[in-house]
Amino acid sequence: MALGLELTDIRMIEAARERLAGRELRTPFLSSPFLDEIAGRRVLVKPECLQRTGSFKFRGAWSAISALEPEIRANGVLAFSSGNHAQGVALAARMHGISAVIIMPADAPRLKIDNTRAYGAEVVLYNRETEDRDALGAALAHERGLSLIKPFDDPFVIAGQGTVGLEIAEQARLEGIGEADVLVCCGGGGLTAGIALALEAHAPGLKVRPAEPAGFDDTARSLASGRIERNVRLGGSVCDAIITPQPGNLTFPITSRLCGPGLVVSDDEALQAVVLAYTRLKIVVEPGGAVALAAALFRRDELDGDAVIAVCSGGNVDPDVFQAALARYA
Amino acid sequence: MALGLELTDIRMIEAARERLAGRELRTPFLSSPFLDEIAGRRVLVKPECLQRTGSFKFRGAWSAISALEPEIRANGVLAFSSGNHAQGVALAARMHGISAVIIMPADAPRLKIDNTRAYGAEVVLYNRETEDRDALGAALAHERGLSLIKPFDDPFVIAGQGTVGLEIAEQARLEGIGEADVLVCCGGGGLTAGIALALEAHAPGLKVRPAEPAGFDDTARSLASGRIERNVRLGGSVCDAIITPQPGNLTFPITSRLCGPGLVVSDDEALQAVVLAYTRLKIVVEPGGAVALAAALFRRDELDGDAVIAVCSGGNVDPDVFQAALARYA
Repeated sequence: MALGLELTDIRMIEAARERLAGRELRTPFLSSPFLDEIAGRRVLVKPECLQRTGSFKFRGAWSAISALEPEIRANGVLAFSSGNHAQGVALAARMHGISAVIIMPADAPRLKIDNTRAYGAEVVLYNRETEDRDALGAALAHERGLSLIKPFDDPFVIAGQGTVGLEIAEQARLEGIGEADVLVCCGGGGLTAGIALALEAHAPGLKVRPAEPAGFDDTARSLASGRIERNVRLGGSVCDAIITPQPGNLTFPITSRLCGPGLVVSDDEALQAVVLAYTRLKIVVEPGGAVALAAALFRRDELDGDAVIAVCSGGNVDPDVFQAALARYA
Repeated sequence: MALGLELTDIRMIEAARERLAGRELRTPFLSSPFLDEIAGRRVLVKPECLQRTGSFKFRGAWSAISALEPEIRANGVLAFSSGNHAQGVALAARMHGISAVIIMPADAPRLKIDNTRAYGAEVVLYNRETEDRDALGAALAHERGLSLIKPFDDPFVIAGQGTVGLEIAEQARLEGIGEADVLVCCGGGGLTAGIALALEAHAPGLKVRPAEPAGFDDTARSLASGRIERNVRLGGSVCDAIITPQPGNLTFPITSRLCGPGLVVSDDEALQAVVLAYTRLKIVVEPGGAVALAAALFRRDELDGDAVIAVCSGGNVDPDVFQAALARYA
């Protein structure tokens, strides 16, 4: 297994849940009558910001690392990331008792570099202007026999993120929700694709719809056109955590088969959702992790049904950004 | 039932859980390796700030209201509160389809007055200097047949808060924790007493210890002296949510029989815990709701065992207080 040749299916997601059992946090559904009123329907929030390391990325990282053959895993793992994936891989590796090398740009936020190190990873910094990240990683992987853990375009990573969908299916049933839109913050599409596969099997009345920040709506445009579309810009949004150039080669076939039309929100709407999550749910969500909630609250006419489910995907927001959002909208 | 003559016991707590089932949020245990490192032991946080209305108070309010005889309940309920109890009673009443009158000081924070109204309660404001709150309440109760829902010194309220203890007993068992201190933010002692009764029955290796802000350590001093001691000051702490003049007449006999020595933290330590909960757990905790976590983190030598459980009791913090804490400690 773990050769990267399989395509994610529901059995892989269920197997990922078994490997994750007892390591992950089974995040609850949160709600507030104040949010229901804004949205004009029931809003159920799945707060993956409370997940270990502050984002859903821990699930995919654990899934991929735990799927490696033990003798290969023992050599350690490698990841490229400046953010949530770095922390997820670092902690999952530490909990497996193996080493992790995370290749990060030297100009990444100090806090994220420090956190990744604090989870026990070896951080290798590179200069974005003068060094080739992929060549650096390939050399390290070859030299030490490290396994690369990709951020989204890997069947086992998608399977791990899909465990969020298994939980949503069960929690929606307990809430009596058989039909609803399920809004998912979408970067490369690993979380979106994984949840969509899980719901296809266990709650077919729940339809996944990706949510993205304006200007970085590659998935929404790709779903509309039927082929992979790229973003023009590669940075410059407060929603940095979910900015990727284009949908993944493994994730897009899944999302294009299973997901409803994408939703797009402005940075200001994402920041308002950050503040409403603070005020009404008492959770800390980063702007990129709040775009699904923003769509649930502010795209009433684009949604169907009496209830909407929104996944808040991460909470690793810098204090100055959070304070600025509070100062402006609280 | 509900005449206020019973003393809370484990059967009342279990009955309260049955009445609460499906209405409350079963809050998870949260943890972070960063907090473990500061504390020098495992730290498990029970985030009741995520509970409906942003604090554990919803549990006791629901328990008391649901225990009323239906024909008496139909007349509505009354509460005195400027904070979390007001919101808990207001929402629990609305979910029962009955009216709630909340008597609040006219100088209470505007946000708390607005929230209480938004949950559907009738808010009656009084002037602290010129009006007698109790006389006002008694007149309203008499006129409309309202039932008073006390904030802590009521057997059904204590039973409702005790459901937190039932959950802690089960969650600690799943985590393999048989012996630990359980730190509980303590005002009048309803939550502390309820949890202590639940753990006595279901997890006797877990010992409840109240946590209080410096200058308002009436429970710690009462436990030490064996009789009810009063605070000298009645206000002036950032931990306003858990400031009460003295332990309750019903709660103190329970806490004095079952609880270990109290722990006292400074306002600064509470604010640091607020920021660490933000940074490491992605939850919003008010200063008064963070004193137990502060004690878990900063009173290493006063605690026993390899693990400590801390209840974060509420999250209704004003944005300016929260921003000031972030600016200072993040």
